[in-house]
Amino acid sequence: MTIAFRYADPVAELALGDLAPGNDVLATQLAHRSVRRFTDRDVTEAELTALVAAAQSAPTSSNLQAWSVVAVRDPARRARLAALAGGQGFIEQAPLFLVWVADLGRARRLGARSGVDLAATEYVETTLIGFIDAALAAQNAVVAAESLGLGTVFVGAIRNRPLDVAAELGLPDHTVAAFGLAVGAPDPAENAGIKPRLPQSAVVHREQYDAPAADAAIPAYDERLAAYNERHGLPGDWSSRVLARLAGTSSMAGRHTLRDALAERGLPSR
Amino acid sequence: MTIAFRYADPVAELALGDLAPGNDVLATQLAHRSVRRFTDRDVTEAELTALVAAAQSAPTSSNLQAWSVVAVRDPARRARLAALAGGQGFIEQAPLFLVWVADLGRARRLGARSGVDLAATEYVETTLIGFIDAALAAQNAVVAAESLGLGTVFVGAIRNRPLDVAAELGLPDHTVAAFGLAVGAPDPAENAGIKPRLPQSAVVHREQYDAPAADAAIPAYDERLAAYNERHGLPGDWSSRVLARLAGTSSMAGRHTLRDALAERGLPSR
Repeated sequence: MTIAFRYADPVAELALGDLAPGNDVLATQLAHRSVRRFTDRDVTEAELTALVAAAQSAPTSSNLQAWSVVAVRDPARRARLAALAGGQGFIEQAPLFLVWVADLGRARRLGARSGVDLAATEYVETTLIGFIDAALAAQNAVVAAESLGLGTVFVGAIRNRPLDVAAELGLPDHTVAAFGLAVGAPDPAENAGIKPRLPQSAVVHREQYDAPAADAAIPAYDERLAAYNERHGLPGDWSSRVLARLAGTSSMAGRHTLRDALAERGLPSR
Repeated sequence: MTIAFRYADPVAELALGDLAPGNDVLATQLAHRSVRRFTDRDVTEAELTALVAAAQSAPTSSNLQAWSVVAVRDPARRARLAALAGGQGFIEQAPLFLVWVADLGRARRLGARSGVDLAATEYVETTLIGFIDAALAAQNAVVAAESLGLGTVFVGAIRNRPLDVAAELGLPDHTVAAFGLAVGAPDPAENAGIKPRLPQSAVVHREQYDAPAADAAIPAYDERLAAYNERHGLPGDWSSRVLARLAGTSSMAGRHTLRDALAERGLPSR
């Protein structure tokens, strides 16, 4: 695995070469792909323990550890969650579905037991800490899973209907499902590959952000991604898909109401 | 490195044993600690390239890649950013300071060039996508850095004064600094260790969230963390530190105004 494979760019191949050969960490990260088809093999309890330990080893803002995870194995519950998350069938197929929770509830309950009002939990800053902590933790779990031969895919659609998801998972006040993660053994027959990303010149800035220089890289990337998409049965290039995805409320599957849902979950985010 | 070391819990040591010995990925993740003292050695351009490639290999919502990173090496700029981020001296000491940006600007500029209004970018859902994408990417960079013998520490205080940080980094509309990451070679003389986390029983739930069962684990953790803190010159246990950190606006270093700042940066987050 070379870094350039991530970019589907022969120029990058020449420029970067094989950085840090023999580094299993980089090799695992660079080989990441989303997995949406799984075999029958289960995820063991020992594997789940390892994923959680990796997740908890990620940094967390001020050691608040403002996240939790609900491990769902019950097929009926996975089916109900799949229905709540846009009907994505792989949630039913994967043996394990992890729902990562932005969790200010643990701290709020601690405050209630201690008779201390934790007013900071009412601000969007603290809501963001919950989502950021959950993301840092979950990404460690993704890479840990891949190191164990498992595959994963994130499910942002768990935010389509946050109140129904909270009811299904018995989430207490001041918590909300941030994203799901389907986990299982990858089915080798899946037609999927390593999706090329924007060139580094589009995302890395030196000292100050240079928008014209970054955006100049997009047309060549559009060609690369269109070719990748065509091989995998997907229409369009990057730009057309971004424009469609962010067009407006009609492209958001209900998530334009998330602000109200957060408030209802006890995360006023002011 | 065993998983139980992360929990400073002899019971966990017995129960978990040495899961997946020889797995460099898990070993690297479990050995994570924040580094706040660095040697003189620089971070090379090849290393920066590897960190960014690892970051770009992380999942991203709908392949939007809604993040950017500003690599700051200039000592004068690092000093100014340190002053804006609570005066944390290690930002000046580390040879490289990465500012991770929640970036809806790239898509908005694409929309402007294409004559398409991207109304979805105005909602808190899409702001969250920017922060989540940035966090997934940055966590891969953290683990990649550790695989190369480097150390890091996140800097949430970059959100203390988001408008001043945006001016310093020339950030365009619809972007905001999400967090910083100091990167360098760890000074072995630093008095720091692997901070124990909450027991798994406090953060993992089966099928449904069980608050009483989770919270029952906190008193024993408070004892473990108080002992760790005392060895490293920090006062208090976990509960007392959480209560102090989240007490209210006085404990937020200006971040209670983040919602207004996001709107001013072109992220109305409604």
